[in-house]
Amino acid sequence: MSERIDHIGIAVADVAAALRVYRDLLGLDLESVEEVASQKLTTYHLRLGESAIELLSPTDPSSAVGRFLEKHGPGIHHVSIAVADLDAARARLVAGGMEPIGDPSTGAGGKRIQFFHPRTTGGVLLEICSEA
Amino acid sequence: MSERIDHIGIAVADVAAALRVYRDLLGLDLESVEEVASQKLTTYHLRLGESAIELLSPTDPSSAVGRFLEKHGPGIHHVSIAVADLDAARARLVAGGMEPIGDPSTGAGGKRIQFFHPRTTGGVLLEICSEA
Repeated sequence: MSERIDHIGIAVADVAAALRVYRDLLGLDLESVEEVASQKLTTYHLRLGESAIELLSPTDPSSAVGRFLEKHGPGIHHVSIAVADLDAARARLVAGGMEPIGDPSTGAGGKRIQFFHPRTTGGVLLEICSEA
Repeated sequence: MSERIDHIGIAVADVAAALRVYRDLLGLDLESVEEVASQKLTTYHLRLGESAIELLSPTDPSSAVGRFLEKHGPGIHHVSIAVADLDAARARLVAGGMEPIGDPSTGAGGKRIQFFHPRTTGGVLLEICSEA
């Protein structure tokens, strides 16, 4: 059911410093920069094999990532796993006891995404995603 | 320089519950279980595309992962990026200002590993690894 790690989302307070680490030192290609208005953040999508590192910079301190930064400081915000069929995967995970956060929505790159609550995933804010 | 996400290390307090999520619900293959005496933990290596989810269960509460669990609870402990040449990568990252935690050592699967301090990586405990 799960195909690959789509991306690791990292909440960043200092975009320039994070780009220096992930792009300049680790050598990842910055493929796209996208403002995701629905989540009040800008994403910096850095390719890493079949996955990506996605730097998440809030455009509003009241956004989910803005509040995460205020509470925890910078660091890993979520992990996203690519699945072929989002609705089927969501149904299977919910039936198994994982708690969805709301309904499927649209994330960066126009993908369909669904988050699950960390209290049902071993402390990880877990996202599944699929092409739209 | 960076080839792929080798694994995401997740500190777990309840191995059975975590296996239920990652193996049984998300459908990942449990490829190996290994006790890493040098780090006082047991790793559960679950394949996910070219990467893996590695569940980290401490065998001693005084271990690094044991102390992480006590302080933060279960959740993502580190991200490991595969590189072709560990020594060359380490030298480049250190020259760029990333702070290594000690010297290269041997991790699960006999790989050579090197951790870098989160204060120099945007809040992420970052590992690079290579085949021995």
